[in-house]
Amino acid sequence: MKIIFTFQPKEEFVSDLKNSFHEVEFLFYKKIKEAENELPEAEVIVTMGEDLTDFHIEKSTKCKWIMVTSAGLEKMPFKAIKKRGILVTNARGIHRIPMAEFTIGLMLQHAKQLQAVWKQEEDNVWSRRLPTSELHEASLLILGAGAIGGEIARLAKAFHMKVTGVNSSGSPAEHFDSMFTLKTFQKELANADYILSVLPSTEKTKHLLQVEHFEQMKDTAVFINIGRGDLVEESVLLEVSDKKLIQHMYLDVFEKEPLPEDHPFWQNEGITVTPHLSSITKKYMPRALEIFKKNLTTYRKNSENYINVIDAERGY
Amino acid sequence: MKIIFTFQPKEEFVSDLKNSFHEVEFLFYKKIKEAENELPEAEVIVTMGEDLTDFHIEKSTKCKWIMVTSAGLEKMPFKAIKKRGILVTNARGIHRIPMAEFTIGLMLQHAKQLQAVWKQEEDNVWSRRLPTSELHEASLLILGAGAIGGEIARLAKAFHMKVTGVNSSGSPAEHFDSMFTLKTFQKELANADYILSVLPSTEKTKHLLQVEHFEQMKDTAVFINIGRGDLVEESVLLEVSDKKLIQHMYLDVFEKEPLPEDHPFWQNEGITVTPHLSSITKKYMPRALEIFKKNLTTYRKNSENYINVIDAERGY
Repeated sequence: MKIIFTFQPKEEFVSDLKNSFHEVEFLFYKKIKEAENELPEAEVIVTMGEDLTDFHIEKSTKCKWIMVTSAGLEKMPFKAIKKRGILVTNARGIHRIPMAEFTIGLMLQHAKQLQAVWKQEEDNVWSRRLPTSELHEASLLILGAGAIGGEIARLAKAFHMKVTGVNSSGSPAEHFDSMFTLKTFQKELANADYILSVLPSTEKTKHLLQVEHFEQMKDTAVFINIGRGDLVEESVLLEVSDKKLIQHMYLDVFEKEPLPEDHPFWQNEGITVTPHLSSITKKYMPRALEIFKKNLTTYRKNSENYINVIDAERGY
Repeated sequence: MKIIFTFQPKEEFVSDLKNSFHEVEFLFYKKIKEAENELPEAEVIVTMGEDLTDFHIEKSTKCKWIMVTSAGLEKMPFKAIKKRGILVTNARGIHRIPMAEFTIGLMLQHAKQLQAVWKQEEDNVWSRRLPTSELHEASLLILGAGAIGGEIARLAKAFHMKVTGVNSSGSPAEHFDSMFTLKTFQKELANADYILSVLPSTEKTKHLLQVEHFEQMKDTAVFINIGRGDLVEESVLLEVSDKKLIQHMYLDVFEKEPLPEDHPFWQNEGITVTPHLSSITKKYMPRALEIFKKNLTTYRKNSENYINVIDAERGY
């Protein structure tokens, strides 16, 4: 059987795969364009999830399974996939650990004012007069209480934070002191020291946060967005910063990425820009390929015990 | 009864004390020099712990209790205190939370390369090619497995780190996967990704770490010192940095503080200087006065249930 990769993993992963599955012919291409001639022979396609189109599905006449080595599925041609009955699995879950560490790291460096400390250090300045604070007993509101939000909540509880969350049902979840829905969370905004969004982009979350939401927050509040850039319009974020409605905003996601070099966010004092870093980790590919290998074993056994099966109808 | 403070707390604490203990006359002085005339009338002295001398103890003929609102007792005139049988209590334990948060914050911002990210941001640079890592499954060796080290270990375990420690007996402690002594810890140096010291300054710890210790560490290791500056000679730290024996050093404590403006540490690429920040927190005085208030209630009741009683003989 032939398995086509539409990206080129590092040599260590290539040899691991070849050693683990001797009977499989792995073909690696830097991009899908280069793989086109082989697609009709591929039983399995492994993709980062942003390159497949109806055209490729049509060409891949023998394809029975598509492994997406990311969590993003927005660009997948699900209609064509469903029509052909192709199995889709993804790497959902591998963002949990790095995103949670990144978020707690941002909150701690904010509480300890490390950006100011590093500026002092550049100028050989020893000054302990910094407005430092603690996570201990501070309040964290997590918009999006799924797997990632839950991991952040678990760590936040280890720091003895008060943790509230927002999910679609408002039903209780482990590590959260209380839960709200997208309709009821506004009343919690005034209590939170940190407001964090890990919400995906959907019709309900697009442009969800308006200036009025930030007006309800504490003026010492910190807003962190590691979910999707379209949660808040750029004009809203700039207005919040101009009016100093809250203390600071850490933005890791944007409506347009990469953020253009001349974008006003970069030098805005109330906004810190990070380049969609939260999920980046050296362990990304090892974890994604670990899922792939387990699923490939399942596939080879003709078993049905797949990890992270995607419903092509729903698209997740 | 009269209680003399040899420092001036903020107004909110002053009124809280007065409201909580109506029958007590509180006298606040900016320094002990100004308090001298009242010392003979004081039943209780509240001090930061660095101003009392034999002379003051001699003058304070009615004094029955000294509350030290810090953890440091090195400068206390214990001989005179013991002779008079004066009770001493301190604020031991209040450094645990801020120091643990500071340490985890340093480790996370190192793992997520936030200093590099902030530099990129200054130049409007969107680049995700940073050597980021995770705390997850990384190994942390804590020199000094007491209350502070134990709290750091607890949080590190929440991040699923491997945590080893060093204490005087080598006996197991909660949150530590294994324990070493000052004589046996060398064999663990090669395994640790992060080596953290919270050791106090004693005859046994002074200049404990030599170049040979750093030579045994991974070249990717990170050394953090939030204990005492004399754990490692400055010349050793500079040699370690020159030879790039490990990846980075974060130093919060120094043989001479404040670190002089022209000190070579400031601009050394392998060393990050923080100005003895780890225990600084807005909650310092609230927590210290909380202990004082509980102890004052005990004192007023003529009870014996004091928090943090110091043995004047041993000095701790």
